[in-house]
Amino acid sequence: MKTLTKELWMDVPKRRQIISIHNDVENLVAESGVQDGMVLVNAMHITASVFINDNEPGLHADYDRWLEELVPFDAGTDPATGGYLHNRTGEDNADAHHKRQIMGREVVVAITNGRLHLGPWEHIFYYEFDGRRRKRVLVKVIGE
Amino acid sequence: MKTLTKELWMDVPKRRQIISIHNDVENLVAESGVQDGMVLVNAMHITASVFINDNEPGLHADYDRWLEELVPFDAGTDPATGGYLHNRTGEDNADAHHKRQIMGREVVVAITNGRLHLGPWEHIFYYEFDGRRRKRVLVKVIGE
Amino acid sequence: MKTLTKELWMDVPKRRQIISIHNDVENLVAESGVQDGMVLVNAMHITASVFINDNEPGLHADYDRWLEELVPFDAGTDPATGGYLHNRTGEDNADAHHKRQIMGREVVVAITNGRLHLGPWEHIFYYEFDGRRRKRVLVKVIGE
Repeated sequence: MKTLTKELWMDVPKRRQIISIHNDVENLVAESGVQDGMVLVNAMHITASVFINDNEPGLHADYDRWLEELVPFDAGTDPATGGYLHNRTGEDNADAHHKRQIMGREVVVAITNGRLHLGPWEHIFYYEFDGRRRKRVLVKVIGE
Repeated sequence: MKTLTKELWMDVPKRRQIISIHNDVENLVAESGVQDGMVLVNAMHITASVFINDNEPGLHADYDRWLEELVPFDAGTDPATGGYLHNRTGEDNADAHHKRQIMGREVVVAITNGRLHLGPWEHIFYYEFDGRRRKRVLVKVIGE
Repeated sequence: MKTLTKELWMDVPKRRQIISIHNDVENLVAESGVQDGMVLVNAMHITASVFINDNEPGLHADYDRWLEELVPFDAGTDPATGGYLHNRTGEDNADAHHKRQIMGREVVVAITNGRLHLGPWEHIFYYEFDGRRRKRVLVKVIGE
């Protein structure tokens, strides 16, 4: 069995931001030498997601607006007025912990003939909901 | 290590449709000869999901109504009137890209003693949100 | 290739309950002897989730309230009055089958140097939405 393990660090200047990590994952799969196997790609932060969908900025803006509707940002600590109990810890990112559950923590992608085995429009992204600092993603390849 | 890779094609006559792929996955796991390992089953389309839940038509109708409430179909391109920026690309399937994020892209299932290792009611489905054409699912088995 | 397969049983006295399974998974990874690989942790019930997020009770209460807003419990069978078609089977847990889709069925976690390879705040939980009986989670380790 061959494996490759890599933490990808990136700058995330905005609070909420979608960043393509597709080429990074593609290159790491090539570097691993694995011909047949799987790659796990996961956020290492609990206010962030890794997801696969369209590389289209209109859709990304739609996601942002929709997630804000489903679980609005609110720094308050009183659920009766739209706040969150989690913010009593001194943080203001409770909404981010919810948004990440909608979009998911991780993806697992097949590797066939040494390459990511994806449909034509599948593209791998990191989605941060509480950024403005350096963040990281874990890439783990296993196979042979 | 043994592996098996298979793209399952299927006809999806309706726009939104849930299709059981459980027996197909079961048969591919048997065909792989893997006794102990994992199988990844993922949609190859970004408007579709693979999920595990009950094989019960009432629940499936409930899912459909609920997803339509969380993110209604709207062919429009103006978010102020219920539309989506993504539809400015000329498509009308922005809602489908959202619904798939709720239901998920993929499942990973354990294989033990040569069989899918599932709880008593777990059943594997494909859920298309923008069908009316042929679609496919990837099945990737690894193990020994 | 090394593997380990274990079903973790637990008592779930409440209808909805979040239970840490983090240490159990950590111990099983150590027991497996796998240095480099992956562990799959999944609910074996279709009204439950395995998820990774903060070990903070305020957040867990926020999740519970939020999920109840997105898909309220209702034992009724008429969607026009807030019920669910699924409850016509004689059950009252249709909401639980929906909540589990938001929070997810499973997580896949990398193993590096014989340990769970996680970010600093990642913690593994089981989330039951229709408890009051014994429930189980599957842990499957593969690697070398």
